[in-house]
Amino acid sequence: MPFQVAVCGPRHCTEQDRNNAYRVGELLAQRGAVVICGGGVGVMAAVTAGARSAGGTVIGIRPNDSREGACDDLSATIVTNLGEARNAIIVQSADAVIAVGGSWGTLSEVALAMRRGDIPVVCVGGWQILDATGAPVPGIHHAETPEDAVDRALS
Amino acid sequence: MPFQVAVCGPRHCTEQDRNNAYRVGELLAQRGAVVICGGGVGVMAAVTAGARSAGGTVIGIRPNDSREGACDDLSATIVTNLGEARNAIIVQSADAVIAVGGSWGTLSEVALAMRRGDIPVVCVGGWQILDATGAPVPGIHHAETPEDAVDRALS
Amino acid sequence: MPFQVAVCGPRHCTEQDRNNAYRVGELLAQRGAVVICGGGVGVMAAVTAGARSAGGTVIGIRPNDSREGACDDLSATIVTNLGEARNAIIVQSADAVIAVGGSWGTLSEVALAMRRGDIPVVCVGGWQILDATGAPVPGIHHAETPEDAVDRALS
Amino acid sequence: MPFQVAVCGPRHCTEQDRNNAYRVGELLAQRGAVVICGGGVGVMAAVTAGARSAGGTVIGIRPNDSREGACDDLSATIVTNLGEARNAIIVQSADAVIAVGGSWGTLSEVALAMRRGDIPVVCVGGWQILDATGAPVPGIHHAETPEDAVDRALS
Repeated sequence: MPFQVAVCGPRHCTEQDRNNAYRVGELLAQRGAVVICGGGVGVMAAVTAGARSAGGTVIGIRPNDSREGACDDLSATIVTNLGEARNAIIVQSADAVIAVGGSWGTLSEVALAMRRGDIPVVCVGGWQILDATGAPVPGIHHAETPEDAVDRALS
Repeated sequence: MPFQVAVCGPRHCTEQDRNNAYRVGELLAQRGAVVICGGGVGVMAAVTAGARSAGGTVIGIRPNDSREGACDDLSATIVTNLGEARNAIIVQSADAVIAVGGSWGTLSEVALAMRRGDIPVVCVGGWQILDATGAPVPGIHHAETPEDAVDRALS
Repeated sequence: MPFQVAVCGPRHCTEQDRNNAYRVGELLAQRGAVVICGGGVGVMAAVTAGARSAGGTVIGIRPNDSREGACDDLSATIVTNLGEARNAIIVQSADAVIAVGGSWGTLSEVALAMRRGDIPVVCVGGWQILDATGAPVPGIHHAETPEDAVDRALS
Repeated sequence: MPFQVAVCGPRHCTEQDRNNAYRVGELLAQRGAVVICGGGVGVMAAVTAGARSAGGTVIGIRPNDSREGACDDLSATIVTNLGEARNAIIVQSADAVIAVGGSWGTLSEVALAMRRGDIPVVCVGGWQILDATGAPVPGIHHAETPEDAVDRALS
């Protein structure tokens, strides 16, 4: 069975998020991992394009009830019609999760991945989570570069 | 239709979380709101007990495939068998969300509630979320007391 | 914990289905069972009205992303945003399933209930299922009256 | 975007079901369709093996919370942790549905596909559905051979 990495991130992302996501996709494909993502725009489209440029397999897990709005170049599109509950499926299907950039949807995926507790969770950019004492909640690896993120995810 | 408030929080919670949750449940029931929660232990059991003590209706949305582990005193138990994807249903069913305490599961519910963008989201205790610049991500109301939390949720 | 009975049936139903569903709801409420249903029109509205007329608790499990289209008199409304996947939740939450009338959605619920294999499944009117040899697939109780259906469900 | 065909069928199937499913997979792959299936044993394993023998892409949509029990040769495995609610996702992701053989789970997928109302639904072997008057409920194409089934699905 191929190693599967979920790559999460905002629809509305920065140029740097987009570049990071593209590179993450490229690296994952080069190293033989299947990419699982939300299959939409922003970070999702960028990681899809990156992985496909390197001949990788990318599965898009869509929230709505049709393939409308899905990236054209996905290897396959899963039409869940679950709304944001589909985030749980993206996370559950992954052997590792990489989040690029920050948004509420992305945060829900990071939280669900940490809730699982059994896979690497890596963030490139994005939000910080502090506990009630103001200290960072441990467990997330914050990567400086796409290369570092992919190394961690596949380690 | 009754007003429905989701109350979220950790299975493993502090004594203060437990007291806060009980009081939130009591106040919501007194004010005629239906409580939606995860129906398990910790904050979930406390809010259920509080609301039931005041004659309220409490619906537990369970992650597993049976009623095993559900609070005894729920008005009804929804057995989703969706795992943590059930968090999305708790949030989606709510006219307001109150989180008491912090955990990864709770954070996923706060994030999904903020992702909706159309309902009050109130935290009593629990975690903080900072954006990439280190500033708190806006939109969540941090309440000092159960009374304040319920006022905000019902406002 | 209260006994929970799922009552399923078409949006577009016959007058007889409607009358049967109303009576099923009334009987279930009189006997202390919580009714779980889809919370919409047709059989769903009729069973809700029947159960509520007898002071019962009725939980509507909605497929869409808001309470729009939900029966007004539900005790609580679960907004799943899961589309027809919500049928699995209705069935999973039940200690017994009663189907009144026939439709594809109703058939999916009967099939999922039989797939569980551990609860009574009762049909009042509705469709028949034959195996490859043309014989009825065993396991479903076909009831003549709402009284018979409720007796079977609660037995 | 590739055309996606869901192939459904029992875990416990006949030898003929198995042969039919293998051939359906082979034909779909030869004609460039992506196969979506439940990713388990029986008909699911047979259609996967058939499609993979012809170099096709097969996505398995699993009900449980890990890849345990998934076919080894899937192109990608979606771990839904939704139980039988995952049947709705299989159906929702498809441009056509082919059912091979009969079981309650398979029937739920056929019913959900007919409930959608906008895609071809083809059965090879399996169960019959009669309405209240004893007539077959219209809409399903019953195919004699895998070739006929695939022709219908792709037409």
